[in-house]
Amino acid sequence: MATFVEKICFIILILIAFQSVSAMKHSIIESKPCKRLVLYYHDILFNGTDVANATSARAANGTGLGNYQFGMLVVFNDPLTKDHHLLSPAVGRAQGFFFYDMKDDYTAWFAYTLVFNSSEHKGTLNIMGADLMYAETRDISVVGGTGDFFMARGICTFKTDTFQGANYFRLQMDIKLYEC
Amino acid sequence: MATFVEKICFIILILIAFQSVSAMKHSIIESKPCKRLVLYYHDILFNGTDVANATSARAANGTGLGNYQFGMLVVFNDPLTKDHHLLSPAVGRAQGFFFYDMKDDYTAWFAYTLVFNSSEHKGTLNIMGADLMYAETRDISVVGGTGDFFMARGICTFKTDTFQGANYFRLQMDIKLYEC
Amino acid sequence: MATFVEKICFIILILIAFQSVSAMKHSIIESKPCKRLVLYYHDILFNGTDVANATSARAANGTGLGNYQFGMLVVFNDPLTKDHHLLSPAVGRAQGFFFYDMKDDYTAWFAYTLVFNSSEHKGTLNIMGADLMYAETRDISVVGGTGDFFMARGICTFKTDTFQGANYFRLQMDIKLYEC
Repeated sequence: MATFVEKICFIILILIAFQSVSAMKHSIIESKPCKRLVLYYHDILFNGTDVANATSARAANGTGLGNYQFGMLVVFNDPLTKDHHLLSPAVGRAQGFFFYDMKDDYTAWFAYTLVFNSSEHKGTLNIMGADLMYAETRDISVVGGTGDFFMARGICTFKTDTFQGANYFRLQMDIKLYEC
Repeated sequence: MATFVEKICFIILILIAFQSVSAMKHSIIESKPCKRLVLYYHDILFNGTDVANATSARAANGTGLGNYQFGMLVVFNDPLTKDHHLLSPAVGRAQGFFFYDMKDDYTAWFAYTLVFNSSEHKGTLNIMGADLMYAETRDISVVGGTGDFFMARGICTFKTDTFQGANYFRLQMDIKLYEC
Repeated sequence: MATFVEKICFIILILIAFQSVSAMKHSIIESKPCKRLVLYYHDILFNGTDVANATSARAANGTGLGNYQFGMLVVFNDPLTKDHHLLSPAVGRAQGFFFYDMKDDYTAWFAYTLVFNSSEHKGTLNIMGADLMYAETRDISVVGGTGDFFMARGICTFKTDTFQGANYFRLQMDIKLYEC
């Protein structure tokens, strides 16, 4: 009789041990992304004539508060590539806006959607936060997702890859999802 | 003695089985919304004279990048109804903005708050994402909520219900909350 | 033999009881913030000449839809203090924008980032929602965080502390995080 009870208890112990392992996995997940994408964002500001090349345009001009284009609002629809090259195949688009928001240096504020429609990924990621351009890297929030990224959340780390005046700049976006 | 032990083990087994059922429920929840609202959003763009009827207005004009109003920014405070009719009683308001962001077709980007203040619902839902107008349906993110929708998250699916030029358009918003 | 089985069962029961306590804690967390910050936000609108004092500027003017500046868009980079006084040391900045969005009263819509860089807090909180200014208090959503506020979510309650015309207003922001 005791042998039967022992067997049951053993099964129960195994089940509980398994649950504990699951719980441990959960806390590991918090420090390690469940999905990661490194992409390059290319922004070519419309100069009034280059419709074919431009990917963004000024919806509102700077306000004159300081010398760093405070209040200048840019709407963008920018290609995303897997490497530094503007002409590499786009794996998605970043659709949204940013504006400059500091009077004695450049900082910006972004809100946008990454739109994927390839064999690799279908769906979107919604992102917002402050781009503290003076810092080498800066984190903004991935606040939602759809499709393959259903209900995702995480962090997107910006790094300026090149800044060729207002006409062209490139950001590295290191996207780490902690809820997938 | 063994009989007593068996009883305890039986109780433990029941408890564990119950926990497993709870866990199963959790994964069902992920595929089935915990709350769902289908609403119609009516947008009447201000033409400069119809103050009484208009529900939205252009805060910035298009930029000339392409022929699809790239960069045109619209602030709105639009009624939400339960059916297609503009004159049905409003069950809430959508307060926020959108802008157009594509140079060779219409796409838009939305960020707004659904504001409820009725006997049925009190509180708000905060929503953002890309409106890929060329697709029959498109998903954007519900990123937060307050009041009855405290800490909610989910998906809002847009469907164009009618598009009568820039003056009037109507969207169906199918709101599915997966965190309630 | 039975004694050994009893011991195992006892340990199992303890483990299960502990799990139940954990589950109870979880629901308590939902009603009580895991972190709370009360801050004051000071907004001094640029009048065209006061570059040294101004902390915000009009990126787009009102649209003429009603008499409450519908569509007026303000970009801000405002100091946050722990008490009411504008000249108290800033513990962070609020970088973002708001616009007015009602034709027969004042209401606004905000999206911004709280940027902390002190010995007490490093990191950011990303916030968005409708500021229904006619209500004494109104809740908006904390949708994400970075640094010390990694992956945070919660509610930010606004209360108008003073409104001295368009030139200066002060909000109390009571930030309650429910996911820390």
